[in-house]
Amino acid sequence: MLCHMENHAPNLDTAFHALADPTRRAILGRLVRGPTAVSAPAQPFAIGLPAFVKHLRVVERDGLITSEKSGRVRTCRMNAPQLVAAETWLARQRSLWQASADRLDDYVETQMPTGPDDAQ
Amino acid sequence: MLCHMENHAPNLDTAFHALADPTRRAILGRLVRGPTAVSAPAQPFAIGLPAFVKHLRVVERDGLITSEKSGRVRTCRMNAPQLVAAETWLARQRSLWQASADRLDDYVETQMPTGPDDAQ
Repeated sequence: MLCHMENHAPNLDTAFHALADPTRRAILGRLVRGPTAVSAPAQPFAIGLPAFVKHLRVVERDGLITSEKSGRVRTCRMNAPQLVAAETWLARQRSLWQASADRLDDYVETQMPTGPDDAQ
Repeated sequence: MLCHMENHAPNLDTAFHALADPTRRAILGRLVRGPTAVSAPAQPFAIGLPAFVKHLRVVERDGLITSEKSGRVRTCRMNAPQLVAAETWLARQRSLWQASADRLDDYVETQMPTGPDDAQ
């Protein structure tokens, strides 16, 4: 049985760990389109159900999805704050990198010797 | 010695693997501000140089940074396409999730029984 987890505070270590595998990313790629029963997401994958459930457990333990059992059906859904936290961290780094690259461009431009065209 | 790697095609498995550790994220947080010599990034971290170099090797093997040796100094720099690929994947998932959440809102609104205010 998959363990049931409540939503919890975003954790970048576990968020990125869950994302470092193609099957786990495919599970998330399915769940961003809406909640689904456990048996359903296994169908498009060329792996057996036990292997699939193992991946699902990792994604849930890592806090990117939650699951809830109602009768005999377990439904999985995205835990969006984890996804958003990971994206926000990356966007911030890319923004800093871009600012640094822009400063380098500015520096190169101001340090360039004037060419023949400029001297005319 | 750190192995020297050329820039390579983005790989989401290794990109997210590199990001799943706070020291490795801190290394990237330093390198987005510009290239730096190997000894320099170790200074703000409360870990020994051997542990630091081990983390650096993982980040390089995972393709998020490259390094180049000139004389006795090894300089590390971001491999931006890896960072951008990871961010782009996450942004796409968040966008799909948002669209799905918006559709659910629309559905709930159209299915809601009209309240007393609407009936007036």
